[in-house]
Amino acid sequence: MTDGRSNHVSSWQRQEGVHGELVEYREGETVFEAYVTWAARSDARRPCVLLAHAWDGLNEPMRAKAEELATLGYVCFALDVYGKGVRGGVADDNSHLMGPLMADRALLRRRMVAGFEAALRHPLVDPTRVAVVGYCFGGLCALDLARSAVPGLKAAVSFHGVLKPPRLGAQVPITAKVLVEHGWEDPTGPVEDVLALTRELTDAKADWQLHAHGHAMHAFTYPGLDKAEAGLQYHPDAARRSWASMRAFLDEVFEAP
Amino acid sequence: MTDGRSNHVSSWQRQEGVHGELVEYREGETVFEAYVTWAARSDARRPCVLLAHAWDGLNEPMRAKAEELATLGYVCFALDVYGKGVRGGVADDNSHLMGPLMADRALLRRRMVAGFEAALRHPLVDPTRVAVVGYCFGGLCALDLARSAVPGLKAAVSFHGVLKPPRLGAQVPITAKVLVEHGWEDPTGPVEDVLALTRELTDAKADWQLHAHGHAMHAFTYPGLDKAEAGLQYHPDAARRSWASMRAFLDEVFEAP
Repeated sequence: MTDGRSNHVSSWQRQEGVHGELVEYREGETVFEAYVTWAARSDARRPCVLLAHAWDGLNEPMRAKAEELATLGYVCFALDVYGKGVRGGVADDNSHLMGPLMADRALLRRRMVAGFEAALRHPLVDPTRVAVVGYCFGGLCALDLARSAVPGLKAAVSFHGVLKPPRLGAQVPITAKVLVEHGWEDPTGPVEDVLALTRELTDAKADWQLHAHGHAMHAFTYPGLDKAEAGLQYHPDAARRSWASMRAFLDEVFEAP
Repeated sequence: MTDGRSNHVSSWQRQEGVHGELVEYREGETVFEAYVTWAARSDARRPCVLLAHAWDGLNEPMRAKAEELATLGYVCFALDVYGKGVRGGVADDNSHLMGPLMADRALLRRRMVAGFEAALRHPLVDPTRVAVVGYCFGGLCALDLARSAVPGLKAAVSFHGVLKPPRLGAQVPITAKVLVEHGWEDPTGPVEDVLALTRELTDAKADWQLHAHGHAMHAFTYPGLDKAEAGLQYHPDAARRSWASMRAFLDEVFEAP
């Protein structure tokens, strides 16, 4: 299975016992490249976590996060909303990549749905148990996939996500369960955005939870980050607790019939 | 140990394997009566969960909750802020009991501290591992005990608690970790109270988390309750998730050195 689709993967730093491959898919004229990873315990289909990258694209830290999810027993399908080879710098201002998609949320939604559909085609994915998890800009992407109400998506988790509403007209009911892990001092998610999101999710009849972490800033799950003056800081307690909450939440949604 | 202090306990419905006793203590001129319960696995000291009752006082549902906490391995010290024998009706308007303490938060705080100190004197209680959990009015009581910054209190958990600030002057730093489980449609905890609490806890440097549950009303943990027109309704998902979150939180605070 791996042979036909993998390339370049051998040069990445991978966790022991975790397999990975690159998978291409299209939306419109654009080619995207996902990183798909799983622990090789068996060939059985298993629950899938779609992972939506931050504004720098599908870079090494996000692939490492994908492998961490794989070790929990999921297929992690780390999707790509920028296009094959389009990656920003981990430490750079990547507004030029994120901005066009923030300005065209319909396009962003189509790209998220394309990633979701590509994941469903993967032979290890149990198509009845798929969730999406995203970080920063990817948190917004995860929420946008939930907003698309694409059939079969069980859950969406946002870690310190951007919370701006899509403003794409009337929202259909959101059937995916939603968990939002939010740092209360995150300048990219001010309280008015938090409140707007709670109203939007309530109106859309979503089963939603918001976990607010006191003193936590944007990107609170990123070890070593300490740019408090810019509102960016690792917060070990919030990181540990939000990860545990995600695990419990995924257990809940994947075990449900 | 039980013989010297228990009375009336035999008439209560107790979970199998769970012991209970009534314990009297004083604050000022007033005598209070707590219900203390534990699973009799050993005589070793163990972590203690103080349980703060709702507006109806230390009635049967709260004693049942205490026993549920006991089965998790804690000594549960279900305290009493109304006074021995002063109990309201479970289904009644108990404003006449709660109101005077809401109007005199300094008195309420003293009564909470008295309950905490009585718990510390119990021979099964590990005085280095004590937390407080409260429901409705008891959620406010739990937060008020945290606000007292009484030494040794590790954590406070509020389930659909009243969130009104105490307005007792400058707040000292809050050293107990705080978890607030809140129904987003709880009319007793409107969004302005939620936001005021987040500011207060942040200013007090508390390690705090707020879990907001979409669509959940006041008293969302009370099975069978369905008075949606009054903002009171059992919400099974929020009840199950908040209980699991409390357990994880207590594991964290009690296992820490």
